[in-house]
Amino acid sequence: MKKVLLLNGPNLNLLGTREPGIYGGDRLKDVEEMVTTLGGNLGWEVFCYQSNHEGDLIDQIHEAFFQGYSGIIINPGAYTHYSYGIRDAIAGINIPVIEIHISNIHARESFRHVSVTAPVTAGQIIGFGVKGYELALIALNQLSLERG
Amino acid sequence: MKKVLLLNGPNLNLLGTREPGIYGGDRLKDVEEMVTTLGGNLGWEVFCYQSNHEGDLIDQIHEAFFQGYSGIIINPGAYTHYSYGIRDAIAGINIPVIEIHISNIHARESFRHVSVTAPVTAGQIIGFGVKGYELALIALNQLSLERG
Amino acid sequence: MKKVLLLNGPNLNLLGTREPGIYGGDRLKDVEEMVTTLGGNLGWEVFCYQSNHEGDLIDQIHEAFFQGYSGIIINPGAYTHYSYGIRDAIAGINIPVIEIHISNIHARESFRHVSVTAPVTAGQIIGFGVKGYELALIALNQLSLERG
Amino acid sequence: MKKVLLLNGPNLNLLGTREPGIYGGDRLKDVEEMVTTLGGNLGWEVFCYQSNHEGDLIDQIHEAFFQGYSGIIINPGAYTHYSYGIRDAIAGINIPVIEIHISNIHARESFRHVSVTAPVTAGQIIGFGVKGYELALIALNQLSLERG
Amino acid sequence: MKKVLLLNGPNLNLLGTREPGIYGGDRLKDVEEMVTTLGGNLGWEVFCYQSNHEGDLIDQIHEAFFQGYSGIIINPGAYTHYSYGIRDAIAGINIPVIEIHISNIHARESFRHVSVTAPVTAGQIIGFGVKGYELALIALNQLSLERG
Amino acid sequence: MKKVLLLNGPNLNLLGTREPGIYGGDRLKDVEEMVTTLGGNLGWEVFCYQSNHEGDLIDQIHEAFFQGYSGIIINPGAYTHYSYGIRDAIAGINIPVIEIHISNIHARESFRHVSVTAPVTAGQIIGFGVKGYELALIALNQLSLERG
Amino acid sequence: MKKVLLLNGPNLNLLGTREPGIYGGDRLKDVEEMVTTLGGNLGWEVFCYQSNHEGDLIDQIHEAFFQGYSGIIINPGAYTHYSYGIRDAIAGINIPVIEIHISNIHARESFRHVSVTAPVTAGQIIGFGVKGYELALIALNQLSLERG
Amino acid sequence: MKKVLLLNGPNLNLLGTREPGIYGGDRLKDVEEMVTTLGGNLGWEVFCYQSNHEGDLIDQIHEAFFQGYSGIIINPGAYTHYSYGIRDAIAGINIPVIEIHISNIHARESFRHVSVTAPVTAGQIIGFGVKGYELALIALNQLSLERG
Amino acid sequence: MKKVLLLNGPNLNLLGTREPGIYGGDRLKDVEEMVTTLGGNLGWEVFCYQSNHEGDLIDQIHEAFFQGYSGIIINPGAYTHYSYGIRDAIAGINIPVIEIHISNIHARESFRHVSVTAPVTAGQIIGFGVKGYELALIALNQLSLERG
Amino acid sequence: MKKVLLLNGPNLNLLGTREPGIYGGDRLKDVEEMVTTLGGNLGWEVFCYQSNHEGDLIDQIHEAFFQGYSGIIINPGAYTHYSYGIRDAIAGINIPVIEIHISNIHARESFRHVSVTAPVTAGQIIGFGVKGYELALIALNQLSLERG
Amino acid sequence: MKKVLLLNGPNLNLLGTREPGIYGGDRLKDVEEMVTTLGGNLGWEVFCYQSNHEGDLIDQIHEAFFQGYSGIIINPGAYTHYSYGIRDAIAGINIPVIEIHISNIHARESFRHVSVTAPVTAGQIIGFGVKGYELALIALNQLSLERG
Amino acid sequence: MKKVLLLNGPNLNLLGTREPGIYGGDRLKDVEEMVTTLGGNLGWEVFCYQSNHEGDLIDQIHEAFFQGYSGIIINPGAYTHYSYGIRDAIAGINIPVIEIHISNIHARESFRHVSVTAPVTAGQIIGFGVKGYELALIALNQLSLERG
Repeated sequence: MKKVLLLNGPNLNLLGTREPGIYGGDRLKDVEEMVTTLGGNLGWEVFCYQSNHEGDLIDQIHEAFFQGYSGIIINPGAYTHYSYGIRDAIAGINIPVIEIHISNIHARESFRHVSVTAPVTAGQIIGFGVKGYELALIALNQLSLERG
Repeated sequence: MKKVLLLNGPNLNLLGTREPGIYGGDRLKDVEEMVTTLGGNLGWEVFCYQSNHEGDLIDQIHEAFFQGYSGIIINPGAYTHYSYGIRDAIAGINIPVIEIHISNIHARESFRHVSVTAPVTAGQIIGFGVKGYELALIALNQLSLERG
Repeated sequence: MKKVLLLNGPNLNLLGTREPGIYGGDRLKDVEEMVTTLGGNLGWEVFCYQSNHEGDLIDQIHEAFFQGYSGIIINPGAYTHYSYGIRDAIAGINIPVIEIHISNIHARESFRHVSVTAPVTAGQIIGFGVKGYELALIALNQLSLERG
Repeated sequence: MKKVLLLNGPNLNLLGTREPGIYGGDRLKDVEEMVTTLGGNLGWEVFCYQSNHEGDLIDQIHEAFFQGYSGIIINPGAYTHYSYGIRDAIAGINIPVIEIHISNIHARESFRHVSVTAPVTAGQIIGFGVKGYELALIALNQLSLERG
Repeated sequence: MKKVLLLNGPNLNLLGTREPGIYGGDRLKDVEEMVTTLGGNLGWEVFCYQSNHEGDLIDQIHEAFFQGYSGIIINPGAYTHYSYGIRDAIAGINIPVIEIHISNIHARESFRHVSVTAPVTAGQIIGFGVKGYELALIALNQLSLERG
Repeated sequence: MKKVLLLNGPNLNLLGTREPGIYGGDRLKDVEEMVTTLGGNLGWEVFCYQSNHEGDLIDQIHEAFFQGYSGIIINPGAYTHYSYGIRDAIAGINIPVIEIHISNIHARESFRHVSVTAPVTAGQIIGFGVKGYELALIALNQLSLERG
Repeated sequence: MKKVLLLNGPNLNLLGTREPGIYGGDRLKDVEEMVTTLGGNLGWEVFCYQSNHEGDLIDQIHEAFFQGYSGIIINPGAYTHYSYGIRDAIAGINIPVIEIHISNIHARESFRHVSVTAPVTAGQIIGFGVKGYELALIALNQLSLERG
Repeated sequence: MKKVLLLNGPNLNLLGTREPGIYGGDRLKDVEEMVTTLGGNLGWEVFCYQSNHEGDLIDQIHEAFFQGYSGIIINPGAYTHYSYGIRDAIAGINIPVIEIHISNIHARESFRHVSVTAPVTAGQIIGFGVKGYELALIALNQLSLERG
Repeated sequence: MKKVLLLNGPNLNLLGTREPGIYGGDRLKDVEEMVTTLGGNLGWEVFCYQSNHEGDLIDQIHEAFFQGYSGIIINPGAYTHYSYGIRDAIAGINIPVIEIHISNIHARESFRHVSVTAPVTAGQIIGFGVKGYELALIALNQLSLERG
Repeated sequence: MKKVLLLNGPNLNLLGTREPGIYGGDRLKDVEEMVTTLGGNLGWEVFCYQSNHEGDLIDQIHEAFFQGYSGIIINPGAYTHYSYGIRDAIAGINIPVIEIHISNIHARESFRHVSVTAPVTAGQIIGFGVKGYELALIALNQLSLERG
Repeated sequence: MKKVLLLNGPNLNLLGTREPGIYGGDRLKDVEEMVTTLGGNLGWEVFCYQSNHEGDLIDQIHEAFFQGYSGIIINPGAYTHYSYGIRDAIAGINIPVIEIHISNIHARESFRHVSVTAPVTAGQIIGFGVKGYELALIALNQLSLERG
Repeated sequence: MKKVLLLNGPNLNLLGTREPGIYGGDRLKDVEEMVTTLGGNLGWEVFCYQSNHEGDLIDQIHEAFFQGYSGIIINPGAYTHYSYGIRDAIAGINIPVIEIHISNIHARESFRHVSVTAPVTAGQIIGFGVKGYELALIALNQLSLERG
């Protein structure tokens, strides 16, 4: 089985409790299970990690690279908008990274309209609620098939 | 069966001939067939339309609304970046619209980094090549199931 | 009788169905009749035209000029904010053009705060709902009287 | 009869003497009489006030509110472009305010293109010379009828 | 007893009637009494003044200086955002000035995010409703004690 | 004979009637004949097309490509300043495109100072009146000779 | 007793040693004791925490929420100016947060003039030296009383 | 004798007491006497006026015009940087106005680098301390001689 | 014969050696001979001058004017983007000046997209390699014929 | 006698021939004589220098410093707007420099509104035609007297 | 021996594996040994530390200060461009800090052109590959000698 | 021996006399001797040149290239911030160029924060006083060794 890292950034541990009008009522644990299940069906082993620490997220991206993961699905949370450190981590490794946002960030505050990580990711999936994580895995699976 | 409009904007008729390094080698007809086939599997009737005319795209968005379509998948092409007319058309109707871009627009010229339509769409799928159209239909299908 | 062109731009065909909280419940046909009736009282023959196509609006502005119209009342819709083509059409003819907006565009999204057509029109009437069309005709009539 | 305050801001006392190429040859007194006459016909008692003092204009807006006026027609003159104080006064009262400009401010210096008061007014009438004051009263009368 | 000037700017005379959702239901008179009472407890004589006139506010700041006041508490209202005249008045005198805003100006329109007076004040207290005036007096009292 | 498309954008049908102080007194038909004649001398068959519709211009650029034209001379009119759709059409084909403007756009309104199409054209000729069309054909002829 | 978290961000551990001309000579420990003492008088148990790590500060904000704290007093230090992660943490919880700055940030370098956290806090206290922490607790106490 | 108005704006009444390091130690009264004396020598009657009120300054500019003054020397103080009202007053009259600043405003805070009144004055004299008022009168005298 | 000055700015002496991928392989001497030959055919005496010194270029523009030249063809090199001194020199003389650039400056670094000299030239020819100099002479010849 | 350098920058050698509507009809030689004569009356020896070369102007500023001049009057012409080299030269010497502009640069193109040299000069005199040179000498003389 | 901290920020642990075209093929360990060796020759004990965590870097800067280090050499990696926290840490200590970048950051993406830490460092060394670390130590040694 | 050009730009001839607080007390001659001595030790012949003329600096860069120099050390002085001419000269030659600044330009006025030459140099050394010239030569020597 291929391995994928499901990486969630700051405040996503609050999922389900934090502003449910924006982020929905599912808890992070539910989401991780949902993706793990789908991964099983598609032939992917899913490792889940969440941290509020920018450095932890960078460390994990490096680790996934050195451990031979075949892809990363990342929701960088607020770091999306200013973490050039995470951007450089993604640019510095050689595996596809998919960016996902639960809410439609382009319909919210203006600081959320710019993603500094997007230019170095393979693609972005934005606005489909927690279902976006599943779409990201489907997308990653397709990319993986194309690249052989 | 539910009906979905697959709407492609300017220069997408050149797909397969235009800058294949960026947009890939599939022709628009191939893509439309691919989505129609997937639609058949998911229970959606797919109507395909492409135009280089902003006004045509607006007309079609209106028409989909009046004809009772359950969703629109749109790649507005270059109009993404300046057509407030298309934005208003999307905002003026009451059905989910998904925006899709073949290339990772955030890794290209700066004028492509802003989408004036994104804020009024349900979500965006960016950078996954023509496979993004399939992802968009899967996403639409999920949205449709959630809304009952 | 003098002739006036009542020109409505993109998405105004949706009037009455589109975001009634913003644009009110009257349909475009109702508005056109209302203006035609007032025109009859003031001695103006009113020709009504709506299109979602920028090129059509430019064509009509030219045509009004060549057909000897005495004025144009235009609601350029979203084109207000980026159509330098319509701006040039207005600047290129020699008859008074009045710009009208149903909603108070200055109380909405920031992209609506700039009108690229306003500098070449005779004047603007903004925020009075569909009654603004009547005010525009009254204004045009006054301009026409002053110019003899 | 309903009461309306006709409020003119800085330098409008110079009307008729100041840059007649831009503002026309009518004096403020003529304009006030013109509006008062029209008011009489439409069932409005018109109170006229002009001041070069920002604070006076704010005071008058408050006073109109406390005295039970049914509307205000204001030409804030140069204060249009920076008086957040007048803006707040308008936003703080509960009666319709119509903004009017004699010249087409969008065809003049760039600092005149932004109105800080427009977002909190009911609507704006721009570019029709002193006849704009009459249009404003007609517009106010219509608003008043609609609101019962 | 030390003397402090409690200076309120434009539209604060509307307190209690103006947008109570933003500014609360207390009237200015109530606020002034509240601060005066607290002043009595802390050993300060409180002089209250409100004006909608920028010039009056400048005059009062000068006067407080020449009359030997030990501090000023100012809510410049909308002048906060553009009155370099008030800024210069504050910078030109030699007594501590505390700026206070009833609402959280950083959560409102963007023009309210910049205070041109803040750089020359001793400090700012923002967002605590009318209780902010009391906090300002407590703060001033502390400053005064520190300076001996 | 090689084929060249002479493509004129919005409002250029007004040539000779529109603002002759800026654009000169020649009519479009005269210009097209002038270029056709020069083309005959240089060994080029000149096809002329004008439209006010952005979509038409894009369609024609595609068509010239599929019909084996050896070059395009385009005056995009006002679309010069915002049509990323035309830009993409030019970038998407494989034949030289020369941009021409009758007036010196850099000596006019600031919005005319930026051309969004220029970066993807072979070159630009600006400010030489309708003679610029002839210069463009001479330039195209030279490019064609160089490329064999 | 109610519980409040006193949260200090990066470099505030240097208090007393770091640029005393700007931040004063008190050490962080002194400040924490001062606030704890005042808390005792007002009926609040004060928990003190300082970290240079953005992630730690986010973790603590979450923890305060889950532990049933009644408020947070935060000096985000330099993170004030770019940590959308801390902003989201504050926005994601349901208890009042007060922002405090020791120095008058508006009188210093321009990057310090913008607080990305201020819009989601209850209020801000700026420029009163370390006494600002006491003012913040007084303010929090008042808010708490008002909310019952 | 010709008449000239010497007009000083906000906070200039503090001259001599306010920031003497920037503005020098002379009091306004001294300056006014100095200019009056020079005026006597050059054949000018000098009327002096100072106000902190923008409206007063506008009123005085108008009055000078109606009273047949031959020129105005104005130091608009902080209003220099935002009073389009004073700008319009100057533009609306037909007599030469000279702008003077005591300090070199271009060597101070950035907001002082822009004068909104300068474009409509005859000229500016900046940075020569209170001697600048004398230079302004000499300059006015020369202008007056040239115009006969 | 009419006289024309062919003026080349900084680094154009490196032509043929400098970045041939951008500027081509012809040397400046070759270009000057090419233009001189064409000039001979068209009835123009061509004087060639190159300098890396801004002042020299200004001097030469003045000299051409005083020596009765009928036109100037200028490639200001990098000075294009900041030399208001050259701009003023061109504006200060009374003969047509044509600006030429070898490469398509709009397809290169952003600082090259703005020409400060273009607004005061007769026209610009951009992107046609060294053949652009010939086009410039043809254009100048046409201008000269039109002006008689 | 004290020595002053009268330094004129690019294109000022054209004075009298260049755009007389803006700069007047006097030739540079006339101006230099006028200032020399006034200098004689005031006790100053005036050395005149004009160059179109930025480097020459810098050299002269240095030279004036090393030769013991007591002041410089400079009209940097277009270099005013971008020559940080001249700015640094002025900042690097220890004698008063007065900047003068013949026309009111604030009433012309926007690039002329910023002077990069002004912050390091003693003061500026703008808009009084060539008489401004005399005013500058009078100002310099006053500065010199004040400094003893 | 003097002590120096060699501090490397995010993603520099990838040195040698990450984008070798930009950063070269040396591993961080090699670089640290290289600097340690040079340090030995120059009389410096070199302590090496790398972290992807902003907070760790701040902690280490503080620690170096409290442990009596004589200097810091820092490559803040991506934090260079937004970490005001690291900037404040550097500003808050009293020992020289030298900033070094391996690649020429000014020849890369625009976000890398601004260093928020540079203003508070002693100096910067940019673009010399990993040899820049040696240059930094030589520079630090010189600074140290100068300061005694 | 290899040859290196030590090139100093405007106002650096004032070194030692100009603002010694910023630039130190060494004279240019001392610096040039210091570098020449070091060059002798490292096997480099050092040619020194200083000019206030932009054109001279460009000429010298060209000359170094044609004379077979192995490198250039340049302090462009104020030209750093606007001379695209010097930038193009550096880009146009094929030898390494090192930029050096005596002071920490990032800690000074904002116009000094941007270097237009940096992107085309090999690297920059900033803020180490005149010792930076030595560091530059050491860096150049290393580059030269690496390139063989």
